[in-house]
Parts: sequence; structure tokens; C-alpha cells
Amino acid sequence: MVEHTGPVRLEHDLLGEREVPDDVYWGVHTLRALENFPITGVPIAISPYLPEALAAVKEAAAETNHDLGLLDDARHTAIVQACREIREGRLHDQFVVDVIQGGAGTSTNMNANEVIANRALEILGHRRGEYEHLHPNEHVNLSQSTNDVYPTAVKIASSNATGDLLTALESLEEAFAQKATEFHDILKMGRTQLQDAVPMTLGQEFGTYALMIQEDRARLAESRELLHVINLGATAIGTQLNAPEGYVPLAREHLARITGLPLTTAVDLISATQDCGSFVHISGVLKRVAVKLSKICNDLRLLSSGPRAGLGEINLPARQAGSSIMPGKVNPVIPEVVNQVAFQIIGHDVTISMAAEAGQLQLNAFEPVICYSLAASLYRLRTAVETLTENCVRGITANREHLAKDVAESIGLVTALNPYLGYQQATEVAKEALATGRGVAEIVLEWGLMPKEQLEEILRPESLARLSPKPADRSGGV
Amino acid sequence: MVEHTGPVRLEHDLLGEREVPDDVYWGVHTLRALENFPITGVPIAISPYLPEALAAVKEAAAETNHDLGLLDDARHTAIVQACREIREGRLHDQFVVDVIQGGAGTSTNMNANEVIANRALEILGHRRGEYEHLHPNEHVNLSQSTNDVYPTAVKIASSNATGDLLTALESLEEAFAQKATEFHDILKMGRTQLQDAVPMTLGQEFGTYALMIQEDRARLAESRELLHVINLGATAIGTQLNAPEGYVPLAREHLARITGLPLTTAVDLISATQDCGSFVHISGVLKRVAVKLSKICNDLRLLSSGPRAGLGEINLPARQAGSSIMPGKVNPVIPEVVNQVAFQIIGHDVTISMAAEAGQLQLNAFEPVICYSLAASLYRLRTAVETLTENCVRGITANREHLAKDVAESIGLVTALNPYLGYQQATEVAKEALATGRGVAEIVLEWGLMPKEQLEEILRPESLARLSPKPADRSGGV
Amino acid sequence: MVEHTGPVRLEHDLLGEREVPDDVYWGVHTLRALENFPITGVPIAISPYLPEALAAVKEAAAETNHDLGLLDDARHTAIVQACREIREGRLHDQFVVDVIQGGAGTSTNMNANEVIANRALEILGHRRGEYEHLHPNEHVNLSQSTNDVYPTAVKIASSNATGDLLTALESLEEAFAQKATEFHDILKMGRTQLQDAVPMTLGQEFGTYALMIQEDRARLAESRELLHVINLGATAIGTQLNAPEGYVPLAREHLARITGLPLTTAVDLISATQDCGSFVHISGVLKRVAVKLSKICNDLRLLSSGPRAGLGEINLPARQAGSSIMPGKVNPVIPEVVNQVAFQIIGHDVTISMAAEAGQLQLNAFEPVICYSLAASLYRLRTAVETLTENCVRGITANREHLAKDVAESIGLVTALNPYLGYQQATEVAKEALATGRGVAEIVLEWGLMPKEQLEEILRPESLARLSPKPADRSGGV
Amino acid sequence: MVEHTGPVRLEHDLLGEREVPDDVYWGVHTLRALENFPITGVPIAISPYLPEALAAVKEAAAETNHDLGLLDDARHTAIVQACREIREGRLHDQFVVDVIQGGAGTSTNMNANEVIANRALEILGHRRGEYEHLHPNEHVNLSQSTNDVYPTAVKIASSNATGDLLTALESLEEAFAQKATEFHDILKMGRTQLQDAVPMTLGQEFGTYALMIQEDRARLAESRELLHVINLGATAIGTQLNAPEGYVPLAREHLARITGLPLTTAVDLISATQDCGSFVHISGVLKRVAVKLSKICNDLRLLSSGPRAGLGEINLPARQAGSSIMPGKVNPVIPEVVNQVAFQIIGHDVTISMAAEAGQLQLNAFEPVICYSLAASLYRLRTAVETLTENCVRGITANREHLAKDVAESIGLVTALNPYLGYQQATEVAKEALATGRGVAEIVLEWGLMPKEQLEEILRPESLARLSPKPADRSGGV
Repeated sequence: MVEHTGPVRLEHDLLGEREVPDDVYWGVHTLRALENFPITGVPIAISPYLPEALAAVKEAAAETNHDLGLLDDARHTAIVQACREIREGRLHDQFVVDVIQGGAGTSTNMNANEVIANRALEILGHRRGEYEHLHPNEHVNLSQSTNDVYPTAVKIASSNATGDLLTALESLEEAFAQKATEFHDILKMGRTQLQDAVPMTLGQEFGTYALMIQEDRARLAESRELLHVINLGATAIGTQLNAPEGYVPLAREHLARITGLPLTTAVDLISATQDCGSFVHISGVLKRVAVKLSKICNDLRLLSSGPRAGLGEINLPARQAGSSIMPGKVNPVIPEVVNQVAFQIIGHDVTISMAAEAGQLQLNAFEPVICYSLAASLYRLRTAVETLTENCVRGITANREHLAKDVAESIGLVTALNPYLGYQQATEVAKEALATGRGVAEIVLEWGLMPKEQLEEILRPESLARLSPKPADRSGGV
Repeated sequence: MVEHTGPVRLEHDLLGEREVPDDVYWGVHTLRALENFPITGVPIAISPYLPEALAAVKEAAAETNHDLGLLDDARHTAIVQACREIREGRLHDQFVVDVIQGGAGTSTNMNANEVIANRALEILGHRRGEYEHLHPNEHVNLSQSTNDVYPTAVKIASSNATGDLLTALESLEEAFAQKATEFHDILKMGRTQLQDAVPMTLGQEFGTYALMIQEDRARLAESRELLHVINLGATAIGTQLNAPEGYVPLAREHLARITGLPLTTAVDLISATQDCGSFVHISGVLKRVAVKLSKICNDLRLLSSGPRAGLGEINLPARQAGSSIMPGKVNPVIPEVVNQVAFQIIGHDVTISMAAEAGQLQLNAFEPVICYSLAASLYRLRTAVETLTENCVRGITANREHLAKDVAESIGLVTALNPYLGYQQATEVAKEALATGRGVAEIVLEWGLMPKEQLEEILRPESLARLSPKPADRSGGV
Repeated sequence: MVEHTGPVRLEHDLLGEREVPDDVYWGVHTLRALENFPITGVPIAISPYLPEALAAVKEAAAETNHDLGLLDDARHTAIVQACREIREGRLHDQFVVDVIQGGAGTSTNMNANEVIANRALEILGHRRGEYEHLHPNEHVNLSQSTNDVYPTAVKIASSNATGDLLTALESLEEAFAQKATEFHDILKMGRTQLQDAVPMTLGQEFGTYALMIQEDRARLAESRELLHVINLGATAIGTQLNAPEGYVPLAREHLARITGLPLTTAVDLISATQDCGSFVHISGVLKRVAVKLSKICNDLRLLSSGPRAGLGEINLPARQAGSSIMPGKVNPVIPEVVNQVAFQIIGHDVTISMAAEAGQLQLNAFEPVICYSLAASLYRLRTAVETLTENCVRGITANREHLAKDVAESIGLVTALNPYLGYQQATEVAKEALATGRGVAEIVLEWGLMPKEQLEEILRPESLARLSPKPADRSGGV
Repeated sequence: MVEHTGPVRLEHDLLGEREVPDDVYWGVHTLRALENFPITGVPIAISPYLPEALAAVKEAAAETNHDLGLLDDARHTAIVQACREIREGRLHDQFVVDVIQGGAGTSTNMNANEVIANRALEILGHRRGEYEHLHPNEHVNLSQSTNDVYPTAVKIASSNATGDLLTALESLEEAFAQKATEFHDILKMGRTQLQDAVPMTLGQEFGTYALMIQEDRARLAESRELLHVINLGATAIGTQLNAPEGYVPLAREHLARITGLPLTTAVDLISATQDCGSFVHISGVLKRVAVKLSKICNDLRLLSSGPRAGLGEINLPARQAGSSIMPGKVNPVIPEVVNQVAFQIIGHDVTISMAAEAGQLQLNAFEPVICYSLAASLYRLRTAVETLTENCVRGITANREHLAKDVAESIGLVTALNPYLGYQQATEVAKEALATGRGVAEIVLEWGLMPKEQLEEILRPESLARLSPKPADRSGGV
């Protein structure tokens, strides 16, 4: 299944002896995983977060084992150096096991153990595979179990990916806020249920998008904290069986220092080892962000529909030719790709929910698909937000005349006259406008219902849209 | 938990003796279920399909047991009469157990057994609860197990509900087809990605909706056939343990006669007893129907947006005042309710998938939530389709002038000139139109690119929309 | 569609005049809604939360309008009394519109306006329908729009339902914690991936469930706070058009007082009027709770499997006869119903996500299905948790001998000998045990690997399960 | 964003001029797409189905254009050769645009047009980028629009992927059927709701799995036919605007010949261009397959639980060491990976449903995410099924003694005595067995209820499990 024609080395495990390509850093456990799980063709190194998080955990464990006198100086130094190389971006191509795998993450853990062991062997002057000098299990994995290493690494990877997503969302919020300022004096028709309602400004509309992103950022930052509660040291089922005295707090301290994250140890390690609640939670919050981004992109596509037979309120920047058959056609391709990422994230959330629900007794065997789905959601949401910010929102322009014309012609203006004409009289004006196609102001003046000056005062943008003197202050967001 | 202040009778089961209100037809097993499962407040009789299907199965079983000499004439006659009364719509208020219940449907089956037994006792001249004369388990449930009765009844109920849904969809298709004919000569701009594309007719647009419904009907009718494969006679796990010789084919024949459905027995009863595939399948098809109905309703809401600042191509009939604050506002409330039902059906499909996946070994314990979700999808889809047909589609009108103006002003017209002007020249025309706001035809004539007669010929609706002389024949649908 | 044979009164709206049954409190707008939306057969009063929340909002509005001099004393008094009657549980049967409806909640709002107006008319000594004295729109709905009233009421209803759910979860947590104490000294095999792993105690297993519920409660309480940010006073699209000066803060104060909830007004009312983020958020958290409850119930069903050919570790209390064909069979019906509710909640979350995503521009027209799905999730989760606590968890017993035998015979014990025998020697013992079916301790002693006293010391429960002297303190939960 | 340091060539499009790396076959449109959509890091060539299907469509179009006199011999020959090279597996690394993209597939179509044009230019002796000789749009895309080419290619790719999946499922079915034969005489306890029910054979259990796969194959083959209805020739919105007379039937014939698939043209091209029904449909069927595979894998994991403290009925072949900390532990990693793929497919189905629902008017802009999700589902389901067949099912063995002991000790045996002892007497026996831990047969004999010979006859496997003389014939599957 895994074809190779070059030189090989022999490695063995519980099931027997196998040839491993001699030019790779991974070993027999990884080989078995490649054969057992040829599922997606996507390796765990599809994004750098997970390999680097695994290396951080292994480095913290090596430091702790060294502190506790379980790992000698030479091996300690070599393992730490190998881990740092990975954290600096090297050897990622050696993290080859499939993102979807059985075994609750064991293959990912062993892939890391083997790559680090073989690189450390090189550092120590040995050849790859000479495990008698430094062993993937006995030294790299010392005092650890997949069941505490893997979820801890996934949490660190997810937290880092979330941090980058938060940065991207902040830029998007700022881009929308800039547009809110730029458009703060452009009156337009507000709509409910796609029907003309009452006037507002385009600045208010874009300010709303900024505020919604701001709120989402707050919720996402809040849920990120759940990722900082780890179970490192729990070993197999959380009873810390065979973990040395003092390992848990020391390993957490080293890992917090290495990652720069405010890590804490779960109050109950048995619970923490089987509980995927934090992954389900943050996936739910990502779904919330996706829902709102998709809504915003739906609006952008709708408001920019046209150029002639659509709403035509705003223009999105042209990013690529839209059609080979229709000259001059430009399509809203950037919002469209964001919509699609949103649909994926909502699908991932279902996958994560099912995988979490399926966990049994002391461990959830399905963490790999949870990890991958969450990683894909975090990564794609970030890239989608980045392209939305830079390739779309920053370049949006408004069709001022068209917007002004829509307000002037709108029957919805009549709502503002309710307090002066009464609901019944206003209704008569509305009916006349609808029947004749004429404007509300024109009818009101013709019927002599109100002096021109008063009418103009009422229909001033400041009155209609309850404009504050400056765009809404976003600092007090909920 | 179940409060009652009137006269009671004593009944007992394996767990002991309990007081049951004397004025009800259900008994102690139903009482336990009411206490154990006060989950939704919605009884299984929320729609009549399930009580009537249960009665049909019980009637078929009674006939078969009588034929095989296991049930005497008097009890047979009484049970059959009780079942027929239920099938005629009586006693539905006695089917009180919650739609969501544990026990794989046992409580629903026992509710039916008890109601039928007590009504049969009355028919025989006894009092309710005198089970020594006719017993819910020993006589009404004779030769049966919940595990074959319940899925069989659910399939019959689902098939009948599907039949009614198919009828409703046929009316909707016909309503759209009528509009296609009515609008067959109204030219309008087609749109891709919400951007103006090339012309078509409003009749083509509505004809498309008719065709999509037609295709959905075909797929739904196809999947309905899976519901006609039953496991009656399988008993506990499908091995027919304790079922009398000859019971399986005879019971199926009686049930087919009683229900008028083309029932067959599954080729393997063990498989059929644990397999929820047909429910998952039809739910998937309902989701497909929901997706398409929701898309159509999205279009209807979009095309009728306005009245001034929207697309304004069509008018939906006014069904209720839209707003207390905005005079004259009318909203697309009927398509909106269809959208919401569609969202529910897609959610139900997830519930059904999870419940089916969770089945273990020889039985799926979660059939009640599958049954309820499927029943709700079928019922609500039908009612939604009916209100869409009668309260919306039949009353839709077109804004001919507005549509004509959009086409005349459209830059998309230039696409039709490609074969005559070449793509480059056409692009120049498009650019000029976009920059100046002028019409394509006007520019072509001003630039002397084409004689007026030729241009008018090219821009005839028949050419632009490739109109066939009459609306598309729907008889050959795929 | 709405059939009625008794006396009627005449009412009219924008679309004309209609007969309304004279014995009902609702009016012509409700009648239209009944005709337009015969979707589910389930009225909005299926649970009392929404009618009571609507009455609270209407009462707060009446107080505010009175304070601001817009509503006279008599009408104010009558409206407030009518609202209080509803809040005390009366007239709920008059809230008849379907839970699924188009119009963004307008029909629900008008149902409330009409019921309150007609009851207030009675209080004032008038007949129902004599709206010239007190009008549903002009007086009950004064200064309000569906678009601020409806989401505010839904948030209050949801917050109250969440409060009751939190209480139910607290009881469940406490029941699990009691079992953790009761079972604290019962050693058993822990399992990962359904394979025997290493020993733990049954108390630890149940303590884990208590802790997971505790964590879920904390997250749910946190997300509940989002429901306390309201948009009352925003009117149509959030610009407060036609809302009187001072209305917003005063109405919030009255509503906070009436409901006892810590309400705040959203910082931006335009954003708040279109944003369904808080509903999506809390639905995501409910999904998290559902996922974990379902996992726990899966475990309970698995641990109680048997009685002979299953794991047989614990016994669930018998709640009803399990089978009519299999004597003595008792099934885990309570956990089964909880599983099914969990599947529903996950489906509801998809529905809510889709409905929220589909919102367009200044309003989400699909709030009714969001409201209903959320209400159903909250209600059913509470009832499911209550039945789980009272009808299952409190009565669970342990099979001590069986559990002890499993540990004694387990090969997993060998893991605890790793530090003494070394991994290689331990593996030899494990292989011998697997091949011969003998026990680990027996082999270790026979092979003379360790003195009996030392072996017994290592295999003491306190050592194996790292038991703390008392059950884990839950007070520091994250 | 797209970094490159080597030699470049200049290309231009509507938006201006850009440098393209000179060593690639793709051009400026692909470059724009790479910059606009850096979403997932996964290129459309992640599996070979789509590049090869695109080449097939382009080859069919070139043949048709040549037949109709629109494309000269030299360009025709070069384009066809380029397409065939791609269909033979070459140049796939040039299909680089992201699987998730805006623009309704335009970037994928242009990526194909550019690669084919540049390869054809080479064949004609020109340099890449010399489009004056052969142009991506004017020659490779001649008579085509993304809106007919892309969905047609996706359908062909999906059909081919489905074909391979069907083959994999057939092997799995056959593997289960072999086990059914192998285990046909092994009696075991059947279980409902995880509680001991009545006896059956292990062969029946595995035969059920074979039958469920068989049924799924039939449904999948049925839905595959929907993929063979194409819209090639529809052009922009289905009105065939600018498509030459005769193009539609001729292009379909060429494509059917090239692909070997029984293609037909949709009866209405406008409907076919906007309708994603067939993708939603087959995704729903894949979800059904996933649900059932996941259920089967849940069963396999449960039946093989142990080795000591589990059900221990069967043994899955060891595929990799299960744990570094627990000697001798082997985990059910293959079923676990299948479960995870199933969860993904159910998530993909939600994504596809949302994307299909979001389509507006004459085109669905979100087909790329539909295409990718469907492709991922088809690919991963096949790889998961293959590893399940070869690495798990074929090597399963049974624990005969343990199974026999479970049946002999089971209380469920008493059900078979119902017809002889009566339900009441049988219940007494069951109670005694449960209370004392003794066997049913032992009690029956001790109490003198039945002669030993009769009891043994009743408890023969053939009687208990209603064994047919040979394993169930699967040829008549529904």
C-alpha cells in the first residue's frame, strides 16, 4: 500500500518486523497508520498548528522528565532541540499520517514520537532507527499517554489558530467601521422581509456589520479560554497511573512557558480525559460566527445586485472576469466564497457534535475527526475573513444618487409622517402613492396636508435615521 | 405526576398495582409511560396517521390469529370493531403517550393494545379493565411484538402521509404550470449570482419551478415504495420465535387489504427489524424537497421585493396586514413560513440520521424520535405546500412594464450581439453603457454597428429566450 | 379553514371585514394567521413561557406609555390587569396562532394585542370587539413594533426556560454526586475504546458525570446572560422612528422590574434588531449539553447491559415492563428517552443556524422557527433531565461482586506492574494471561516475579485508582 | 500572495496585465483565483476524478465544435490530445485552484481552459501563453459556459467516484457474507436495547450486515442514474443563447462515448442549470450508507469489547499496537476510522443542503462547495470501506465457547418455553434464574416442568434461531 523503491531500514513493533524507507524520519508505527488509514490523502501537517503543538508538548515533557531525573542530559538536549526545530517550521513534511484515523490519536502521537526520536538520534550522532540509543516510546513519550498528549496538543493548536482568527476578525471589523464612517451621511431605505420599510443610512448598515463582528470576537475570545484547560499527566484514563509524582504541575508550567498560553490543569483528570466539551463549545461559537458572516455576505451580494436590474446600492471591487460569454459581467466572488466556508463550518459542527456524542466510557476514540474538523473550521474561517477584508470590503463604494432616489420615491417615508398626519391619513397617502406611482412628498404637498418647510424638516436624514452626530461608538459593545 | 380526581379502577403490571382513571380507555402501561416520559406535551395522536395505522395492524393481526384458530369468534369480532372505529377517527384522544419516549415504541404499542382491549370489552358487554375477558397483551397483541408491530405501523402511517404530500405537491406543480402559461410572453432579465445575465421569460422562470416540483414528486414516489416493505411477524429480533406457522404471509395479506397499500415482507426479517434505512432514505428525499421549495420561496420573496426599492418583478397576493407602524406594508408571509418549515425538515433529517446511527445490535431503540421527526416533516411539508399553493402562487401577478424596462435597459442584451459584433466590439458597447447609463440598443444604433431592423430582429423575445411556440411540455420529465 | 358555528362578531383590518367567533378573545389578525399558517397544529401556548413573556412586555409598555402621558389611567389600569392575569396563567388557551408562522412574529404579537385588548375591554365594562374604546394596535401596541416586542418577549421566555433547566441540571448533578459518594470504594475496570484499560472506581466514574454536568451548567448560565440584552423601543428597524423620547430606558426598567431579570438595552438597536446571535449562541450551548447528556446515557445503558450477556456493572431501576414476549425483560427506557431528546436538540440547532443565516438586511423574518426550536430544546431538555434524575439516576445500584471479579481477572492490571517488572516482562505476563485465560496475579506469583505482599500492596484499590481519601471536591470546577 | 522567483510570462485579462510563472500551464485567470481564494490549501486535483472529467467535457466540446465547422483541424487535434493526456493522468498538478472558490466554478473551468490551451500550444509548436494561436476562451471554451461545463464535469466525476464506491461496497458485502457462512452454526444471544433478548446465530448477525450493504448498494446505484442527466449546451442560464444549432445532442453523444456513461440531456435546460437536486439526492443516499456503516462498526466494536471485561464475542484482527502504556492492548482502530468518516459524510450532507438551498434565481453560485463536499464524501467512503473490508472484516474470528456459555446461562432462553409452560410459569422461572444466578434449563428440570429430551429439543440452535439449512439467499434483496 505504501510503495517505496529506495533503501530501507528494519523496524519492529508488537505485530512484527517491517521495512521503513531509510530517508524518512517516521517509523514503523507511522507506516502501519499509513496502511490502515489511507482515508483522505490529507496529512496532519496540512496546517502547521498541530505539528508545532505536538512538538511543544514533547518538549515540555522532556523538560519535566529531565527535572524529575527520569531523562539524562544528552537525550534531554537532543529531544528538546528536535522539538524546537519542528516548532520553527522544519520537518513538517514528516507528519504524514492521515487527518482521519482510528486509535484516538495514537498514530499522530507515534508519528511525532518517531520523528522526534529519529531527529534526536541524528543530533546525538546516531543513525535513524537506532532506537537502542533513544527510543520513541521509552524516551520521547516518557511519562505520557496518547490520551493526555493528544488532546493537549489539539487544544494548543486550536488556541493558536483561534488567536490568528481573532486577528483576522479584528481587521474585518475595522474595515466595516471605516466604511460606516465613509458612508455615514448616505441616506437609504431600510428593509424588513425584503420589503421597503423606513429610511436609515448606509453608514448605519455597515456600522451594524462592524458591531456584529465585534460581538462575535468577544464570544470567540471567551470560548478560547476553555482550550487552556489541559489534562497533561492524566495518562491512560485520568488516574495518573504510572505518572511520576510532581509531573502534572511541572509539565503544565513548562508547556505554558513554551507556548506562552495561560494553561491550567483540569480539576478532575478523569473527567478531562473523556470530555470533549470544550471542542463542541468552540465549534458552536465558530458556527455562530459563520452564520453571521454568511448573513453579512448575503447582504453584500444583495445590495450590489445589478448593475441595472438589481438593488444596485453598492459596488463590490471587481476581482476577476465573471464570464466568458457575457461581456463586462463581474460577480461577487469574494462574498460567495465566504458563504461556502460558512456552510462548511456548520457541517463541521454537526460532525463534531456526532463524534463527541459517540465517545464511550473513559475516552473519546473519535478525537481525530473532531480535531480535523475544528482545525479546518478555524483555518478556513480565517482565510475567508482575510480575503473578505482585503479583496472586498475595503474596496466597496456606494451609489449615492441611486440610494437618494430610492428614498425620495419611497412610500415608506410616510411612516415618519404618522405622528403629524395620523395613521389613517398616512394610510390614504400610502395608498395613493402605490396606486399612482407618485412620491409621498408630492402627494402630501398637493393635498395641502403640511407646509413644505415642515415636511422638509421631517424628511431630513438626521430626523429619519436618528443619526447621532458621529458614527456609533463601538467601545461599549456587549 | 399524572393527576386525577375522579373515579378510578385498579390495574396491575410487572411492577405492581396502580389506579387508572376509570373514564379512559388506556391502562396501566400507558400510565407508566405518561409518568416516565412527560417530555414534549405532544401526544402521538397529534396527527391521525399513527393511531389509524396502529389500528390497521392490530386488525390484521386479529384477523390472522382468527384464521389460524388462535382467537375465538367473539374476541375477534370485538377487536376488529374497535380497530375500525379508530380507523374511522374515533378514540384518537386516547392515544396519549408522548411522541418522544424510551422503550423502542413499546409504550405506543401498549397504548394501542389497551385502548383496543377496553373498547372491545365494552363491545362485549364488559367494563373497562376486566381483562380476564379480553387482555391487551394476550389477545390484542397476540403473535406480535412491539419490534414488528411498531415499525410496520410507522411505515403505514408514513406512506399515507406521503401520499397526501404527493397530492399537495401535484397541486403546487399545477399552479406553477398555470403561471408559466400565463406569463409565457413576458420577457425579463435572467440573473446569475444576482448579477444581470441574459434575457428569458417569466413563463420560463415559473415553468422551471413546476418542473422542479415534478422531479421531486417522482423521487418522493420512488422512495415511498421502500415504506411498503414490512417486518410484521418478525417478533422480538426477527427470528420469528413463537410466531405461529403461516402467520407472516397471512398477516401481510390482511394488512395490505385493510390499508390498500402494496405491502411486501422483507426478505430477511432479522435485518428488517434492526434496519432504519428506509426512514433515513425518505427523510433524505424530504430534505431534498425542502431544499428546493425553500429555494423557490427565496426567489419569490426576492422577485417581489419592493414595492419601490426592490426588484419589483412580481406581486404576491396580500394575505394579512404587514405592520402596525408602517402604513400599507404587505409582507411575503406565505413563502416565509415555507422557508421555516424547510429549515425544520433539514433539522429533522439530522435528528433522524443520528437516531438511526445510534441503533445497536438487533434493534434500534430510538425509533420513536425517528417516527416523530419523519411524521412532523411529512405533515408540515404538506400543510406548507398547501398554503403556498392556495394562499400565494395562484394569486401571483406580474409587473409587465417594469420587467420590459429592465430588459430594454439591460447591458446583458449585448451578449446576444456577440455572434454579429464579435466579443471585443460587444465589450466596448457594454463598457460605454455601464459608464454612461445608456441603453445597449441606443449605442449600437448611434455607433452605426447594425441596421435597426436587424437589431430589432435579434432582440425579439422569441430569439432572446429561445421560446418554443408553447410552454415546455412537462410530460417527459426525468 | 377555521370552522365555527356559534355566534360571531364582525372585525375588520386592511384586507376587509371578517366574522370572528364571539366567545374568543383573539380577533381578525389572529384569524388571518390561523388561515395562513395551519402548519403544525401546535399553538404558541404549548408551553407557558411565551404567553407570559408577551404579557410582561405589554405590561411594561403600558406602564411606560402611561408614565410618558400617552395612555390614560383607565386604559392603563385595564391593560395592566389583563397582562397580569395572563402572567398568572389565565387565558393561555387564547394564544392560538401556530408556532411556525410567516411575518417575523407579527401574528404572535397581534394575537397578544388582541387578547389583551379584548380582556381589557371586558374589565372596562365593554364587549369584546368594541375597539373604539381600547384598540389592539393603538393602545396595547402603542410605541411598539413587532420587531422589538417579539424578540424581547422571546428572550424573556428563553431566559425563564433556561432558569428552570439550570435548576433541573443542578438536581441531576447532585444525584450523580451522591452516587459518586455511594460508589467511592467500588473498584472496576476503566475502558478506552471499549477495550479493558486500567482500574478505577465506580465512584470516580459517576463523579465524572457530576463534574461534566457542573461544567455544562456554568456554560449555560454564562450564555443565558446574552438573553438579557434587549432591543425594546427599537421599533421597525432599530432607528426608533416614532418612538417617544425617553421610551427606551423607561420601558427596560419596567420590564426588568416585572420579570425580575437583569435586562440591559443593546448598545446599537439597528444591530440588535437584525442579529440573532444570542439565539444561535445559546442553541450551540444547549447542543453541547445534549451531547454530553447523550454520552452519559450511552454509558449508563452500556454499563447496565445484561443481565447475563452484557457488562452488568450497574442496575438501572425498573420503570416499566420491557416486553410482552420476553418474560422478565427490563429495558433502560429513561436513558433512551434522553438520547432521543439530545438528537432533537442537535437537529434544532441546525434549524436555528439555517434560519439565522437566512436573515436579510434589517430584520430576520424567520425568528418564529428560531423561537420555537429554541423553546422546544429548552423545554424538552428540562423534562428529560428531570425524568433522568428522578426515574433513573437516584435508583442506580452497583453489582459489586461482578465488578471486583472483572478487575481481579483483568489483564489491564499488568500496567500497574510496569514500574516494577519493566515493560518487556509485563508484556510477557500479559501475553501468557491472554493465551491461557489465567489471571495476572496468579502468573506473577507462579513465575516468582514479586513477593505476594508487594503484589497485594500494588493492587490495592487506593493505589490503582489513585483514590483521594474522599470523593473529588467539585467546588473548584472550571 | 502567490510568490514566484523564476522566469515569468505576461498575460492579461479584463482587469489588466499580470506576470505568470513561465513553467506552469495555468494562466492569469488561475492566478487571480489563487489570490482570491487561498481558502483550504487543497487543490481541485486532490482526487483525479474532477480533472479527468473536465478534460472529457473539453474533448467532447472540441469534437463537437470541429464537427460543426467551428474549430479547425489543427486546433481540434491539439486540444483533443491535451485532453487525453489529462485523462491519462498527466498534468493533474496544474489543476491548482482551491476546492472552495467563489464564482460558481468559473475558476475551475478557466484553470482547465488555460492548462489545455497551453499544452495544446506546445503540441502545435508554440510557447505557453501565445494565445493568439489558440485561446483558452475562444477555442478551448468555444460554445461553452461555466454554467453548463462545470456541473456536467462534476456529474461525470461524481458518477465515476460512485462507481468505484459501489465496487468497494460489493467487496465489503461479500466479506460479510463469507463470515455469515463461516459463523452459520454459532449460537449466540440476540440483544434488544442492549439487554439480553432471545438466541440467534452469529451467522445471522453477519448475514444481516451483508444484506444491509446490499440494499445500500441498490439505492446508491439507483441515485447514481440522476448524475447522468446533464445540461451541456445550456450556456449561461439554460436558454442556449449563442450555442450553435445542433450542439446539444452532438456534444452529449461525444461525451457519452468518451466517458462510457449513459448520458442524457435534461428535458428543460433552464431548470437543469439552476437545480442541484441530484447532488442533494445522492448526498442524502451517501448519508444513508454512512449511517448504516457506522451502525455496523459500532456493533463490531461492541461485540469485540474486552478481552476480559467486555462482551468478547468476536475478535478483530490486530492492526497496530494500541498503547504505549498498556502492554498487550489492541484497539478496534479500523471500525473507529469508519465511524469518523461517517460523521464527516453526515456533516457534508448538511453543508450540501445549505449550499443548495442558498442558490438564487437562474444559477447556484455555491456549486464548488457542493462539488467538494460530495467528492470528499465519495472518496472517503470508498477508502474507509476498503480498509474495513481488507484490514478488519476478512480477519474477524469468533469466541465460540464464550458465545455458547452466554446462551446456556441466559434467562432469555425462557422465551422459547412460553408456548409450553405458559407466560406466567415462564416468568416464575425467569425470576428464579435472576434471583439465584442459576440457569433456566437447570431450574426447569429441577422443578420437573418438562422432560429433559423435550427441553433439549426446544433449545436446539435450529429451533431457537429458526435456522434455514443454508445461509439466507441474498439474491432477492429489496
